[in-house]
Amino acid sequence: MTAHFSTVRPPLPDTLVSELQAHFGERFSRTQALREQHGRDESAYPIMPPDGVVFAESTDDIVATLRSCTNHGVPVIPFGAGSSMEGHVLAHQGGISIDLSRMNQVLAIHAEDMTATVQAGVTRRQLNTALRQTGLVFPIDPGADASLGGMAATRASGTNAVRYGSMRENVLGLTVVTAAGRVVRTGTRARKSSAGYDLTRLFVGSEGTLCVIAEVTVRLYPEPEAAAAAVCCFEQVSDAVNAVIQTIQMGIPVARCEFLSANMIGAINAHSKTTLREAPTLFFEFQGSSEGVKEQSQQVQAIAHELGGQDFEWATRPEDRSRLWNARHNALFAAQQSRPGCRVISTDTCVPISRLAASLEGAAHILTQAPFPSMLVGHVGDGNFHALLLVDPDSPHEMAIAEQLNERIVRLAVAMDGTCTGEHGIGLHKMPYLAEEAGEDAIDLMRIVKRGLDPLNLLNPGKMFSLEPTPAPTA
Amino acid sequence: MTAHFSTVRPPLPDTLVSELQAHFGERFSRTQALREQHGRDESAYPIMPPDGVVFAESTDDIVATLRSCTNHGVPVIPFGAGSSMEGHVLAHQGGISIDLSRMNQVLAIHAEDMTATVQAGVTRRQLNTALRQTGLVFPIDPGADASLGGMAATRASGTNAVRYGSMRENVLGLTVVTAAGRVVRTGTRARKSSAGYDLTRLFVGSEGTLCVIAEVTVRLYPEPEAAAAAVCCFEQVSDAVNAVIQTIQMGIPVARCEFLSANMIGAINAHSKTTLREAPTLFFEFQGSSEGVKEQSQQVQAIAHELGGQDFEWATRPEDRSRLWNARHNALFAAQQSRPGCRVISTDTCVPISRLAASLEGAAHILTQAPFPSMLVGHVGDGNFHALLLVDPDSPHEMAIAEQLNERIVRLAVAMDGTCTGEHGIGLHKMPYLAEEAGEDAIDLMRIVKRGLDPLNLLNPGKMFSLEPTPAPTA
Repeated sequence: MTAHFSTVRPPLPDTLVSELQAHFGERFSRTQALREQHGRDESAYPIMPPDGVVFAESTDDIVATLRSCTNHGVPVIPFGAGSSMEGHVLAHQGGISIDLSRMNQVLAIHAEDMTATVQAGVTRRQLNTALRQTGLVFPIDPGADASLGGMAATRASGTNAVRYGSMRENVLGLTVVTAAGRVVRTGTRARKSSAGYDLTRLFVGSEGTLCVIAEVTVRLYPEPEAAAAAVCCFEQVSDAVNAVIQTIQMGIPVARCEFLSANMIGAINAHSKTTLREAPTLFFEFQGSSEGVKEQSQQVQAIAHELGGQDFEWATRPEDRSRLWNARHNALFAAQQSRPGCRVISTDTCVPISRLAASLEGAAHILTQAPFPSMLVGHVGDGNFHALLLVDPDSPHEMAIAEQLNERIVRLAVAMDGTCTGEHGIGLHKMPYLAEEAGEDAIDLMRIVKRGLDPLNLLNPGKMFSLEPTPAPTA
Repeated sequence: MTAHFSTVRPPLPDTLVSELQAHFGERFSRTQALREQHGRDESAYPIMPPDGVVFAESTDDIVATLRSCTNHGVPVIPFGAGSSMEGHVLAHQGGISIDLSRMNQVLAIHAEDMTATVQAGVTRRQLNTALRQTGLVFPIDPGADASLGGMAATRASGTNAVRYGSMRENVLGLTVVTAAGRVVRTGTRARKSSAGYDLTRLFVGSEGTLCVIAEVTVRLYPEPEAAAAAVCCFEQVSDAVNAVIQTIQMGIPVARCEFLSANMIGAINAHSKTTLREAPTLFFEFQGSSEGVKEQSQQVQAIAHELGGQDFEWATRPEDRSRLWNARHNALFAAQQSRPGCRVISTDTCVPISRLAASLEGAAHILTQAPFPSMLVGHVGDGNFHALLLVDPDSPHEMAIAEQLNERIVRLAVAMDGTCTGEHGIGLHKMPYLAEEAGEDAIDLMRIVKRGLDPLNLLNPGKMFSLEPTPAPTA
């Protein structure tokens, strides 16, 4: 947490307050409680409250907010479910937090086309509930019950990405509102298109810095005919990781493939009342036809067996699979609980699959130097994992060490032609890492796009990258 | 072909000619033959030659060309294999054509990561030849032996996209040269990333208007353990299309799924010496494990049978499959040959899968009014097909009618929430259709990006969209 924040800033202009009150009534608030609630997320940052909160219920509400704020030169920060890990929603430059959680209408389910269009505040669980009678699912699953607008904004993915891709592959189109308050629809419902610049993909992952996302159209998938989950543990981390690498290199279409370190399993056992053996462990899920699931699972079991995998345990009943994946999804809370009062700082590197072992073992080695506990968990089928650093937020020493170790883990991944963030995004926290990974020339192109689309720098300002060129090192 | 082109323009500045001669020697040419060769493609446009041609052999050559041309305010048009269908490479505003075909080095094959990095001029067949010993393939197959730079620039796809996606999903990263001559690398070799704006996807599909692509990093896939192709014909177009719709809605992972109209089959029989029955026909390819291929093909056969599909014929030997897909790939030439002297104007609409029948039958109905022959062929598993309009290029009447019918087919697709181009791109030809499909607000965002990245409008100028706002209709 090396960034510095000014706490002194001008109050909201009275005319803006009047405009927002006139338009939104009680849906515009400046109470301390609401401001604080919108000034924090799942990152380890202290609360940075906005100057006011608007609850949007329609695209028109977003337009009104952006027009008023742009006229007054006041920042606007989109707020979904607040489940960001990287400080995306913090108002370190003040302004208005626009809460989209009431934009929670599922607008259209085109079951016959396997697409759905939702307002930005709809969460992935809500969408899947709405899909229940259709035989279709929206598989992208970052763990948290995030909003689809937020997931699009951070290019989220999660456990299923190894098979279904990330939001990059699964958003067909967006309705966005620009800084000037223009409503623009990008993309169509066609599965592919060569029609013009890919504005959809430009906005997916733009973290609220180029537009406010109002609606999201996503791809859906047929509910698999059969599914099975399996748990397998290994003597060594390297054996588990090599089993993953071979599975991916053989092209076995696993639906999920998760690694958990031995102490991560311990924390999960304590939190979720499971009785898993405390060893380096892989969780798998297989989906497809009955035959396909059988074939995939036999192939993976053979690979795991060769590498000394033990206790290959099956969960085919839906309730058993749910229990397993709930335990996995609660890993973050399990980690938190294992050191009362701690905050979790999570790394998020992703590397080419052949470097997974070196990247994961390298991270484990780096973390042996930590004065606090740490655990490893992640979507290893994509080359993506998280080191969870359990720091005492009241210890500047621990916080500083955590950032140093985080940086070393990132540098290791970038040196392997990987990325500092597989799925969490940049936000405030990873700005120096993006600069290092992408390089000044690429960041310059991003600056050009940002300046063009948000000339007053009011959309989630100060996130992702600095608008000023990085000063050259003094010799 | 409604666009108008000025043929009077200033000659290349002498100082630019001297600079290019000094840098490139004989690799810079102004001979009529080379200029004409670089002023045409597979579209029906007349030749529009550039003022000179540069043969780049390295990224540095691209930098030198762009620096010199930018200094002199002269347009630069990237040229790959010349297989564009939409006039992308035509020099209607003059300038320098930068031929990238000699940038044909496969720079790296990371078999263990299933990625390859190539120079922009490497063609898909060349890459697959280089992959022969690895057990991996690059499946994206637009039919023509296009260059990977060109395929990235047009967001190409083709027969395999129903399973593997388009260039949008399969380009991991690019090395590009900006108008100012800066070399920028976008993306990493990680399978997924949330690190910053998605510059890779911004440049994929930008048709040479934002940068010149120098290197492309793509995903590879394990060669399937088993593959089988099948041909099935139907009494009615609607039955064939409904078989496709059901196949896709069931989530059967077909690798290819192509429709051919009865007269298209006739033309193919004449061109490729095949003996297929002249009826509405589907070509399928199934890939996977032996069990998987068997299961998929049984499922599809059952669907086809229900809809009266006949003569379900199998091709499992590689040479038989090759013969079938070569016949399909030569459909364009077969169509051309069926009316000597004709040019083919191809539509390229793509619609949500449930609208495929209405879209395809609507196109067939519209084409009953054509005074020239037409055939239907396409990647129907994606909702994408081509109406091939066989026009006499010397008949202004036929050319005008062809454009009118093309426009009606496009409008039908756009009204179904589809796109005017599934894979060919906009180029010169589809500019009015992009404007109609995307709308003025989205085009305005594209203009902002274009002006930011190419402030002098020298990169393939005048393609995709007009930089000037569309005038409001006078009441």
